Amino acid sequence: MIVTVIGVGLIGGSLALSLKQQGLASRVIGVDQSPAHLQQARALGLIDEAQPDLPAAVAGADLIVVAVPMDAMLTVLPRVLDLVTERQVVIDVGSTKAALLAAVAGHPRRGRFVAVHPMAGTEYSGPAAAAAELFAGRTLVICDAQGSDADALQRVETLFRQLPMRLVYLGGAEHDVHTAYVSHISHITSFALALTVLEKEREEQRIFDLASGGFASTVRLAKSSPAMWVPIFRQNRLNVLDVLDEHLHQLQRMRELLAQEDYAAFEELIRQANHIRRIIQ
Amino acid sequence: MIVTVIGVGLIGGSLALSLKQQGLASRVIGVDQSPAHLQQARALGLIDEAQPDLPAAVAGADLIVVAVPMDAMLTVLPRVLDLVTERQVVIDVGSTKAALLAAVAGHPRRGRFVAVHPMAGTEYSGPAAAAAELFAGRTLVICDAQGSDADALQRVETLFRQLPMRLVYLGGAEHDVHTAYVSHISHITSFALALTVLEKEREEQRIFDLASGGFASTVRLAKSSPAMWVPIFRQNRLNVLDVLDEHLHQLQRMRELLAQEDYAAFEELIRQANHIRRIIQ
Repeated sequence: MIVTVIGVGLIGGSLALSLKQQGLASRVIGVDQSPAHLQQARALGLIDEAQPDLPAAVAGADLIVVAVPMDAMLTVLPRVLDLVTERQVVIDVGSTKAALLAAVAGHPRRGRFVAVHPMAGTEYSGPAAAAAELFAGRTLVICDAQGSDADALQRVETLFRQLPMRLVYLGGAEHDVHTAYVSHISHITSFALALTVLEKEREEQRIFDLASGGFASTVRLAKSSPAMWVPIFRQNRLNVLDVLDEHLHQLQRMRELLAQEDYAAFEELIRQANHIRRIIQ
Repeated sequence: MIVTVIGVGLIGGSLALSLKQQGLASRVIGVDQSPAHLQQARALGLIDEAQPDLPAAVAGADLIVVAVPMDAMLTVLPRVLDLVTERQVVIDVGSTKAALLAAVAGHPRRGRFVAVHPMAGTEYSGPAAAAAELFAGRTLVICDAQGSDADALQRVETLFRQLPMRLVYLGGAEHDVHTAYVSHISHITSFALALTVLEKEREEQRIFDLASGGFASTVRLAKSSPAMWVPIFRQNRLNVLDVLDEHLHQLQRMRELLAQEDYAAFEELIRQANHIRRIIQ
């Protein structure tokens, strides 16, 4: 199978590597608006060929992966669908789905498109951040699967099961609600934590001296790229605002109990938070 | 050297293991108010002997490590100092220092005490969570070192350098300010994030399905024990409230920009948060 990856960054590059290492892709063609990234992806072995011409890159592929930031996705995906035939399959790997699915809802080639979201990533970006083992054992969400042709859906399912990934099916709007709760809010809290510490702790050496694994863990996502995350927050704005308001409420509750020295109720909140142990190992 | 560890949990147990594995402790005596924990610590090889009698446990030791929760520390540490001679050395491993140092400020044996805080831990607790490699390569903060006898301080410095740990010196009050910024706030944000997600996402299977490494990383500390953390928040209440107010301010700022769709300013905040990359690798 020949795979074209549009956007050879963390996710596109990692998928290219995974497919090659599992023997699922015989050849990977890379497309990227950054010539430097394309060159780097080639040097790192993520892709076998850099093809600056989008129609040519699409024409030669069995599977086309669109892995660009969410704002660019809204224009690149319809352009790719304009180019594909009934024998090709297109996937995105984006973090929000409702706007994207709406953008291609009436497209004559909608059936060739399967909307997927691999629940994996790191705080780094670009081709150098790509890793073959990023997806193994993780969840792949497939959205609005009923909008895809049966053969296209089945090819995508078979492919990702071999990485291996666990498949979960959600509606596009439902996906955006749940990912706001479970993924997007974590990035907001981590960015805000970094801003807080950088504001309060003006001596950077002290942060370095005192940072334990716990602090590093909570602030890790604050290294994430704005080029990737601003479009996600923009497209999932209402869901993110909703969960952010709940988060502000929970923090205010903890603050008030601490201010009033109501340690019994404060401890009860921590015990409730501990319930996350049941879910996250 | 014979070491007595009072409180054979995550930190006390890990220190016992480290000292034994580095050949720095020939024998470890354990004291704990939980007979089950003592038995478990013995079975796991954290301690060589369980000694329920505190005076007997202190009498036989060259070094006494007090590793109990911060509220118990305020009463246990003075009792231990009542028992020690001029040839023994006592350390705590507590996460707050100002109240503890005040509690022993006038004690006749204050000089035998060295206040240390190893900047390492995990979200787990109890003897089963102890690990020999917890401290290697991390920072040890030594507080109000001028209050310790020169020989006691030097023995502690030599010991921890061999684990090996990197030594940093702070005043006790200063320590509490900085750890509120760099450590304690991370736990508050993680507890609040867990509460938020558990409140918004009532389907626990969905959290499990969609949780990526990023979510797991930011919510990890929410598994931490209230028995350990409530006393820390109580003793460092004013510093924690101060940094929590700043954190609420930063979150509100992000919320308002997103509500107003001011994506340029929102992106600028993310770029500022990215500065944490310079400090945390």
